[in-house]
Amino acid sequence: MTEAGALAGDADRRFMAAAIRLSRRHLGLTGTNPSVGTLIVRDDGAGPRIVGRGVTAIGGRPHAEPQALEEAGEAARGATAYVTLEPCAHHGRTPPCANTLVAAGISRVVGAASDPDPRVSGKGYAILREAGIEVFEGVLADEAADLMRGYLTRSLKKRPEVTLKLALSADGMIGRRGEGQVAITGAISRAQVHMMRAESDAILVGIGTALADDPALTCRLPGLSARSPLRIVLDRDTRLPPGSVLARTAREVPVLVTAASDCPTPRRIALAEQGVDFLAVDVHEGHIALPELLEDLAARGIMTLMVEGGAYTASAFLDEDLVDRLCLFTGPAEIGPGGIAAPLDPAHGPAGFRLLREARFGDDHYREYVRAG
Amino acid sequence: MTEAGALAGDADRRFMAAAIRLSRRHLGLTGTNPSVGTLIVRDDGAGPRIVGRGVTAIGGRPHAEPQALEEAGEAARGATAYVTLEPCAHHGRTPPCANTLVAAGISRVVGAASDPDPRVSGKGYAILREAGIEVFEGVLADEAADLMRGYLTRSLKKRPEVTLKLALSADGMIGRRGEGQVAITGAISRAQVHMMRAESDAILVGIGTALADDPALTCRLPGLSARSPLRIVLDRDTRLPPGSVLARTAREVPVLVTAASDCPTPRRIALAEQGVDFLAVDVHEGHIALPELLEDLAARGIMTLMVEGGAYTASAFLDEDLVDRLCLFTGPAEIGPGGIAAPLDPAHGPAGFRLLREARFGDDHYREYVRAG
Repeated sequence: MTEAGALAGDADRRFMAAAIRLSRRHLGLTGTNPSVGTLIVRDDGAGPRIVGRGVTAIGGRPHAEPQALEEAGEAARGATAYVTLEPCAHHGRTPPCANTLVAAGISRVVGAASDPDPRVSGKGYAILREAGIEVFEGVLADEAADLMRGYLTRSLKKRPEVTLKLALSADGMIGRRGEGQVAITGAISRAQVHMMRAESDAILVGIGTALADDPALTCRLPGLSARSPLRIVLDRDTRLPPGSVLARTAREVPVLVTAASDCPTPRRIALAEQGVDFLAVDVHEGHIALPELLEDLAARGIMTLMVEGGAYTASAFLDEDLVDRLCLFTGPAEIGPGGIAAPLDPAHGPAGFRLLREARFGDDHYREYVRAG
Repeated sequence: MTEAGALAGDADRRFMAAAIRLSRRHLGLTGTNPSVGTLIVRDDGAGPRIVGRGVTAIGGRPHAEPQALEEAGEAARGATAYVTLEPCAHHGRTPPCANTLVAAGISRVVGAASDPDPRVSGKGYAILREAGIEVFEGVLADEAADLMRGYLTRSLKKRPEVTLKLALSADGMIGRRGEGQVAITGAISRAQVHMMRAESDAILVGIGTALADDPALTCRLPGLSARSPLRIVLDRDTRLPPGSVLARTAREVPVLVTAASDCPTPRRIALAEQGVDFLAVDVHEGHIALPELLEDLAARGIMTLMVEGGAYTASAFLDEDLVDRLCLFTGPAEIGPGGIAAPLDPAHGPAGFRLLREARFGDDHYREYVRAG
């Protein structure tokens, strides 16, 4: 093992894991900035100890590094900084975080993910190295990137990270034809879904689901109701009724109707008066052009999008290869004849995805898949 | 004169000027897409005639080119297309506009501005040339770019285009110390300001102005009230009163308070309950870090920002070299002693800017400057 390899060793991975856990604290709360964690660790001979902690502030400013360095004060001199994302390198009014680490006298930086932003990519680490700081990149990079996937996807692909959530019956159905919402999964799964909503920038459903279920699509966990994200309805012809729960609550939690620009005007006016916002979409062969829609959502600052169905919308996102992560909640009951089959084969798992994690939520089975490769 | 020069001649400039006028129609209404104009012109021997017209739809989709080509139908074959911006080159669900022009049989394209988006830049024109289409770039490029400056600035600088508006008395004052709003300019100037608001994505004032004037900052022109943009208050310590006009109307026209993330919580909760939104800012030497703020606004889709003062805020934007365009409205009255001097020397014009246009609005003198070079 090389000396460099030895230095970025077990202790480094342990502290990086702690920095990643810290970054999780403000997940979904940092606007268009990623939630980053920073730890400052020094060893004066009696073993390493954490002397500074920082996580991107709620709202996205300030960044993690200056907060961690402020806590560390003089103890930062000669210490190691663990950063879950490459420190920023572009000048604003405040100095770039890379320069702040240099100025604080940090002697060693262990980094996880690299920043794809062209103003930062490679430049943050380069500033550190030019100042004589030892840099180890890529430590637990996948784990760190997993929590910043919205930021990374938006930078790299100019669209939000798309998570598709599906609740399946034991026989692979997502509902019963002609009926509204069917409770397929239990209370723990539903709490998980509400937690996922709180960590997303936006939730999306098709107009079919909006009409059949009249859902609220809010986060209804105690203490987290203020974290309900933007609610988006795929609604080419502006069919969302002004009397729907979504429209009636549009002034509390924003609602965005994505409609063809030539949609009927009186309905649009009625919804707009209730506070519903509109986004014009391209229509291709009768359907909303999803890649263009995602591009426009990313341009508006949406980094993470949770697609909640129904079957038609889920299929459209899967067919167009726009799903990055698939969360399957499978309940114990069967729906049987009259059921709407899920747009994938649950026995073999979805094609093109790999299983990331599995869990039991009460009687339900949870499987989370990510795009393979 | 070369043949190419002769081809991109007077007629081309005339049609491009018409396409630019067309693009103006949806200025400020196309979300994060630029408002582009397209004309399809053919000459069957009896002189050129327009057979197709397109402007980016309200909301930003569809783009201008497919609309113009649809109107032209078969008449597009062998015709010339005038496009105020390089046609897009990246694939979504709908084909890129460059390919749509090729497929329609266009034989000549006259373009104004180039697109700085790395997915388009040069690639749109290259697709046309590879298909054997004659391309003339840069015809009336400055005029076209002037109308797309928000889109271009956001692409190039990762911040919105900033327009600073100042109303000056004849003796160069912007108000009187210790008083609220002073009517410096007349009704026509005020209508112009409201028109500028309608064409902006956001308006910004400092908390001093918000407290002294209690302004509404809406567009109050007949028929244009629905075009009031986002209202932003620079308010490090969250001092905006819940009883202010801004807070009380936050559910009708959005209000964004840019505050340090450690601002007092009870005031923030009261404002949030009224529908006021918050954006966390970096603070540098006691002041809000403006470049970082502008970066975050751009990331949220704001392409054009109109700064309406007061003196302190205007000075801060000028001092940090963040003003792209300066609009001075000078009224006939003098304010005299006790006046607050404008943060520039009106006799010599602002340093670093060049005069773009001048006009009389009733008794007022209007001067519009843009950043030189």
